Amino acid sequence: MEYRTLRWKGDSTGSLWMIDQTLLPTEFKEIECWTAEGVWEAIKMLRVRGAPAIGVAAAYGVVCGTRDFRESSREDFNRKLAEVAAYLATSRPTAVNLFWALDRMTDLALRESTLSSVAIHDRLLEEARHIHAQDREMCDAIGRHGADLLSDGSGVLTHCNAGGLATGGNGTALSVMFAAAAAGKSLHVYADETRPLLQGARLTSWELQQRDIPVTVICDNMAAQVMKEDRIQAVVTGADRIAANGDAANKIGTYGVALLAKAHNIPFYVAAPSSTFDLSLSCGEKIPIEQRARDEIANGFGTQTVPDGVEVYNPAFDVTPAHLITALITERGVVHNPNKESVAEHLQDLSSVE
Amino acid sequence: MEYRTLRWKGDSTGSLWMIDQTLLPTEFKEIECWTAEGVWEAIKMLRVRGAPAIGVAAAYGVVCGTRDFRESSREDFNRKLAEVAAYLATSRPTAVNLFWALDRMTDLALRESTLSSVAIHDRLLEEARHIHAQDREMCDAIGRHGADLLSDGSGVLTHCNAGGLATGGNGTALSVMFAAAAAGKSLHVYADETRPLLQGARLTSWELQQRDIPVTVICDNMAAQVMKEDRIQAVVTGADRIAANGDAANKIGTYGVALLAKAHNIPFYVAAPSSTFDLSLSCGEKIPIEQRARDEIANGFGTQTVPDGVEVYNPAFDVTPAHLITALITERGVVHNPNKESVAEHLQDLSSVE
Repeated sequence: MEYRTLRWKGDSTGSLWMIDQTLLPTEFKEIECWTAEGVWEAIKMLRVRGAPAIGVAAAYGVVCGTRDFRESSREDFNRKLAEVAAYLATSRPTAVNLFWALDRMTDLALRESTLSSVAIHDRLLEEARHIHAQDREMCDAIGRHGADLLSDGSGVLTHCNAGGLATGGNGTALSVMFAAAAAGKSLHVYADETRPLLQGARLTSWELQQRDIPVTVICDNMAAQVMKEDRIQAVVTGADRIAANGDAANKIGTYGVALLAKAHNIPFYVAAPSSTFDLSLSCGEKIPIEQRARDEIANGFGTQTVPDGVEVYNPAFDVTPAHLITALITERGVVHNPNKESVAEHLQDLSSVE
Repeated sequence: MEYRTLRWKGDSTGSLWMIDQTLLPTEFKEIECWTAEGVWEAIKMLRVRGAPAIGVAAAYGVVCGTRDFRESSREDFNRKLAEVAAYLATSRPTAVNLFWALDRMTDLALRESTLSSVAIHDRLLEEARHIHAQDREMCDAIGRHGADLLSDGSGVLTHCNAGGLATGGNGTALSVMFAAAAAGKSLHVYADETRPLLQGARLTSWELQQRDIPVTVICDNMAAQVMKEDRIQAVVTGADRIAANGDAANKIGTYGVALLAKAHNIPFYVAAPSSTFDLSLSCGEKIPIEQRARDEIANGFGTQTVPDGVEVYNPAFDVTPAHLITALITERGVVHNPNKESVAEHLQDLSSVE
């Protein structure tokens, strides 16, 4: 089945439709977001998640939130725009792409100060569509560059969800698999279920099923056994943040998978847009690790599984050192054996982190 | 809190009391098993689990099941005993200790053919108590031998539940920690939650909490990060079956933990009774790996987490090769750097696998 994580229907007085990801994998339902409040709620409640997808949703949310001011003065329109952007920024305060997209929308309005309210509102939809299209192109380019790294007949392990559901397009790690499959290669994907939030079980496997790519879900602790059984020829994951030397932060468990891949001589690839690089960080040790709530582990999925009073440790991310990464895949190409020099070369001419 | 996985209350007309482990960790409740049917149901429904504990429970179950034949002829008593033993054997058809304990009970009755029904019934309770006591002693001896391997102030990682709840005594891997703590060493245990059935989250952490040993539950995929943060100085797990060369089968995920320990230069210990060795198997590759039900992964918390139609792979065990095992700990002592020769030497004079 074709699925679109996000889509705008109609002209600038239209609305944003999105897959409600909280209902997956048991129910596929698209919801309509007609107001900024609706978009805010969808981001807050994780109906849409993944940094790039949140950015795109927020941009469309600005269009929703200013719709009623098309006939107002530009002064009133601008005031409303600032209010809507500030409001949407509170939906997910740690999502960098959210702020980036909102800034891009408000900057446009500041630059185009002579347009009428109707005209700037139309231009804002255009800008949101452009952000969305750029994201799709970025995903496709990652897929194109990465597809060559996967051989026909490969078993591919992935961790968490770096798929289309996290972006406006085909995703990052999954885009590599989609592109390889589209090129006629036969793949079998093993998806770590990815505790505590089970993005692999719930979302990655769903996406692969929709694309008719064979997929098997395993518990995270089964990855070593699956590798030992020669079922895996490559690992591909996404990344949330990559340091200047190529160390990559990603969903908790990724570092362990990289060590297991190394022990079994399996190549380990990280697919992420160049905007993921944070060159202000010399190495991965500088990346702060967010600690998340006890209940995600102790009361996952409506059942208490840890005794009252027992401590839980719940780091959201870990850092895979560059020496465990066979190659980084971005929309610009492939960086084999990433290190400070090869990363700098790969990113040169990149005016700023997009 | 003191807890006893299993205890017989009263004389040979008494009954078996056990912790209903299906209610842990949210409820602590001991249930009374008065009949063989009650014991059968408790084993079947996993109210009692773990190979040694099942053996002990079944032995007491024989006493329950023959209680009403104390006043019958020995012929009738023997017939009932055979019937009860055959019935209890169907409660968990893959549990070797179950058959071993039932055989021991019926063999005793065959040997002591001249005793009255009352007398043999009393002797059967004595035998069940003896099986129970032997199990307790085995656990204590493992603890004694292993405790020296843990330093004061250590962080210790364990996987699954190799605790008192799985035995008639203090467990195997956990017995090592209990003995070290009893010797005045301060420990902090990290318990892998152990998907899919979460024995680490539900049972191991509960046992450690009862013994006032600090414990932190982590998801299985967090072990590598916890090791990287220097929180772990030793790993101790149990084993279900050990081959002649020291390769050890244990709960799925153990092999991965051993690889991660190796990568972080952390010693990896396996604690198990000598009855766990299967010398008929030259190496771990000969150990068959049981595949378990899809639902354990796909519907694990009372919530569907994997899409309908998506395949799941659910091996119950994996095999850790001997070269990743720093030492094996049995009730007989410690085998450093286990291999075919050191294992044979350790087990010499062992008349038969108990």
